[in-house]
Amino acid sequence: MKQSQLFMPTLRELPSDAEVKSHQLLLKAGYIRPMAAGMFAYLPLAQRVLNKIEGIIREEMLAVNANEMSVPEILPAELWKRSGRYEAYGPELYKFQNRQKRDFILGPTHEETFTELMGSEIKSYKKLPLLVYQIQTKFRDENRPRFGLLRTREFIMKDAYSFSADQEGLDKAFRNMEAAYVKIFARIGLDYRIIVGDAGAMGGSDSKEFSAPAAAGEDTIVYSDATDYAANLEMAKDFYESKPFEGEEEPLEKFATPNEKTIDELAEKLDVPASSLAKTVVATNEAGQLVAIVTTGDFEVNLVKVQNFLNIGDLELADEGAVKAALGAGFGSLGPVGLPDDVTLLVDQRAADLGNFVAGANEDGQHYRNINWKRDVDLQDDQVGDFRLAREGDLAVDGKGKLNFTRGIEIAHIFKLGTRYSKVLGATVLDQNGRSVDMVMGSYGIGISRLLSAIAEQKGDDEGLVWPAAVAPFDVHIVPINLKDADQAKMTDTLEASLKSQGLDVLVDDRKERAGVKFADADLIGIPVRITVGKKAAEGVVEVKVRANHTNFEMRVSEIEDSISVLLRGEEN
Amino acid sequence: MKQSQLFMPTLRELPSDAEVKSHQLLLKAGYIRPMAAGMFAYLPLAQRVLNKIEGIIREEMLAVNANEMSVPEILPAELWKRSGRYEAYGPELYKFQNRQKRDFILGPTHEETFTELMGSEIKSYKKLPLLVYQIQTKFRDENRPRFGLLRTREFIMKDAYSFSADQEGLDKAFRNMEAAYVKIFARIGLDYRIIVGDAGAMGGSDSKEFSAPAAAGEDTIVYSDATDYAANLEMAKDFYESKPFEGEEEPLEKFATPNEKTIDELAEKLDVPASSLAKTVVATNEAGQLVAIVTTGDFEVNLVKVQNFLNIGDLELADEGAVKAALGAGFGSLGPVGLPDDVTLLVDQRAADLGNFVAGANEDGQHYRNINWKRDVDLQDDQVGDFRLAREGDLAVDGKGKLNFTRGIEIAHIFKLGTRYSKVLGATVLDQNGRSVDMVMGSYGIGISRLLSAIAEQKGDDEGLVWPAAVAPFDVHIVPINLKDADQAKMTDTLEASLKSQGLDVLVDDRKERAGVKFADADLIGIPVRITVGKKAAEGVVEVKVRANHTNFEMRVSEIEDSISVLLRGEEN
Repeated sequence: MKQSQLFMPTLRELPSDAEVKSHQLLLKAGYIRPMAAGMFAYLPLAQRVLNKIEGIIREEMLAVNANEMSVPEILPAELWKRSGRYEAYGPELYKFQNRQKRDFILGPTHEETFTELMGSEIKSYKKLPLLVYQIQTKFRDENRPRFGLLRTREFIMKDAYSFSADQEGLDKAFRNMEAAYVKIFARIGLDYRIIVGDAGAMGGSDSKEFSAPAAAGEDTIVYSDATDYAANLEMAKDFYESKPFEGEEEPLEKFATPNEKTIDELAEKLDVPASSLAKTVVATNEAGQLVAIVTTGDFEVNLVKVQNFLNIGDLELADEGAVKAALGAGFGSLGPVGLPDDVTLLVDQRAADLGNFVAGANEDGQHYRNINWKRDVDLQDDQVGDFRLAREGDLAVDGKGKLNFTRGIEIAHIFKLGTRYSKVLGATVLDQNGRSVDMVMGSYGIGISRLLSAIAEQKGDDEGLVWPAAVAPFDVHIVPINLKDADQAKMTDTLEASLKSQGLDVLVDDRKERAGVKFADADLIGIPVRITVGKKAAEGVVEVKVRANHTNFEMRVSEIEDSISVLLRGEEN
Repeated sequence: MKQSQLFMPTLRELPSDAEVKSHQLLLKAGYIRPMAAGMFAYLPLAQRVLNKIEGIIREEMLAVNANEMSVPEILPAELWKRSGRYEAYGPELYKFQNRQKRDFILGPTHEETFTELMGSEIKSYKKLPLLVYQIQTKFRDENRPRFGLLRTREFIMKDAYSFSADQEGLDKAFRNMEAAYVKIFARIGLDYRIIVGDAGAMGGSDSKEFSAPAAAGEDTIVYSDATDYAANLEMAKDFYESKPFEGEEEPLEKFATPNEKTIDELAEKLDVPASSLAKTVVATNEAGQLVAIVTTGDFEVNLVKVQNFLNIGDLELADEGAVKAALGAGFGSLGPVGLPDDVTLLVDQRAADLGNFVAGANEDGQHYRNINWKRDVDLQDDQVGDFRLAREGDLAVDGKGKLNFTRGIEIAHIFKLGTRYSKVLGATVLDQNGRSVDMVMGSYGIGISRLLSAIAEQKGDDEGLVWPAAVAPFDVHIVPINLKDADQAKMTDTLEASLKSQGLDVLVDDRKERAGVKFADADLIGIPVRITVGKKAAEGVVEVKVRANHTNFEMRVSEIEDSISVLLRGEEN
């Protein structure tokens, strides 16, 4: 393609409102433009990258016999009401009415749609397993869209769904899809980790997240420095061996703590470590039900673990007014003794091992000492779990190595949904014995548009974007210095034709611009191989630049045809 | 691909709620399923057809240097308010608010979006012309969605936009795009006509519509039996040579018509032809402004011509209450004499040639005779035009041949928009002389999803769908009768591998079904070439069926590799 006809509005200045590198580079190089908050136009260079990524995904999905199809983007609200997500999804769900005043939503994901479709079309286990997927625009009304393509209100997803007759079928589909994703990301040329994900968000039992390490990532990846254990911070577990309290139980005793509002103040007053005190945090769900979580005083509660433990969504910290109304005291004086019956009590495993311990008395300015779980609270085993927010330096859950933290971008997430959706939507098949069973499902997403940001974060440098050859908008960028020079013009045409005949995508900078402008734009847009046609054209010599490693060298044009595939691969070093 | 892993829910019975052939066949063959009124899932076979159509479009767009890109589907209402279409588009525009209570719409088309983008990025004529396009889901809240993919609330469009510095640039872009569309539809293998379209709907000056003749078409195509003149009914013109009235003007006279409510009753009472009487029709726009259109009594008013004449949108016939309130009489007694000043009067060219004619007196049960335009109405030349709804048998506008009618499906529409959008949205460039000029635009749409229906209407037969090879979901359908037979199994594998190595898409029916079921499904889904591997596999012989022309013949399997391209072409006979 000729660059004079390519819509590629590069900028000379870094856009001031872009916080992270990928956002800055994609704007500056003319790949994207914001059209509203959190909604972007993908300009032609970005579209070419998207098309190449989608091509790779289609090939790898075909290789595992996944069926490409597509369902509507507008969904009847009724379907999501039946699954319970119409309310549970929260304000990020776009809701509206059509001209007949019927309720609809814009789909952020399509578990319900595919479940309903398969439930009505598939009646026998003999037709299973089936794998279906689509590549489609999705919608999520983010409160604070930011970081360019990383958190947007409209984005492109590949969402796949597997339908099996039993758990073994799901396990196999899940393994196949994971393997296909590994191939996809290897072909794209992106660095990533597979980590333990939060399956609860999708109502599933088990999930793996593909995370691309990058400074701009919104997620914290927790990984062991000794094994390949890695997890999203919200799922990360550390090592703990239970040591139940076996000392003598002292009498329960209330005492005044008028000035001690925090655990640290309390620890200082009592001259004990925070880890020996109990801290009580109260959370609420959308319905206003309260959950009190007791931990030792030295770490933070991980609400995602609490949600998954209770198998509910949307927990958040309760405000002090609601807490005081229900428990009788404000923050700083809460504790497990004498909780109202309608407040659910959960206790972290470390706190459950405390004895003769101190906690708030649910009375402002008062604490108890010498609390003991069985005697004073009647704690049951099924109220105890791991609710700790992991910390850097913790011993990893397998007892080997320490946990390290890094930032990551979630680029894919695969879920074992089980029967979460098929059960409530009535998607059943008859099994070998003629019994009706719920289909066992998985769902498998790739965030396609955010992959552009992930690649830009990982590969971009001071001069601009750097695309792996497999997803670059063009393979080769031919930059003639002066097209009025007959030798240069002729060599440009010959080279373009010869490379195109090899099936390569070639961009020719035919603009009437100074060489400096052309080179700066070329570095900025990041095509893997640049061939400069200049004064030595008459001698049959051009200059080659490999964008990724900044190498520049002269080459006889006659050698290029043979060496181009090596040059393109070289880009990935 | 193996058919056992393809999601292809064919039906044995014709769906009762589908009115037209294409809708019936696409449902029955497992290509589409309704997910809500006017919203369909494209199942895997349909998705394959869509992908092939999109591939052809991409190639032909690249050949004319059009840039693929994409803009958001959710658009800020503010942009459409500025262009005036937020109100003018009517109730088919999906409107909603986001969580911050800001107004948005779902894009049914994107003239405004691209105009704003190009207006902000392109500053000089030197960067023009530019051609951009996208392939995207569009939304239109149809009051009565029907006919399967022909009238839906969510559909796939290819929409392209050209930006030029002057009218010559637009003319050239329009010609290039028309030529590209001709190539696209030739490659797809669809019958179509290029007809005069209604440019007014998009605010343009000139348009051409690509219409696929089909019984299920919602449009009436009017064409000359002598020339290549063809137009949408709403735009069709017939031949008329003006013969101004030159007789003696008789005195104006009111007379009672108590029982004559229609033109026919009046013509009978007066014993004159309806063509000598004036009929007055009153229309209203959304703002309630009235337009009275006078025609001769023998034909119908074409409101689209009236809209385009006045350069407004959304005219519809006024109800009798509004008419009576404004003009003083109900239907049957309306006329041009003594109209209120705030009612716009337009007169069809034939009616303008009447003299001493009869029309209603705007008084119930009263008419005038001997009306003469200059004397009684003060008619001006700029109130006269062609407002006739063409009729089959009319002389064509060039005076050659008669107009015939047929039904057609609008598959594409290309518009010269001129400066309709660039002017109101401020999209200007500096021209050669440094003056700011409005960009001159065109817009070019292809209805991709409805192409499936158009092809199904034109090509489908009693057995099912018939796909032209270029867009068929698979090229070859291999149907082994019995895969437990070692010869058949081996030949099936060999054939599949050999055809795939030629780059062909091959579907293998590996299901454990009776031969009759396999054949019926094969005919239904309409893959161009079917190869049946049966008892003669041991002898190296298979049976070939060309779906389009129902030919069946035996062939040595060794010959297939060489003859497959001929067989695929043969399909288009």
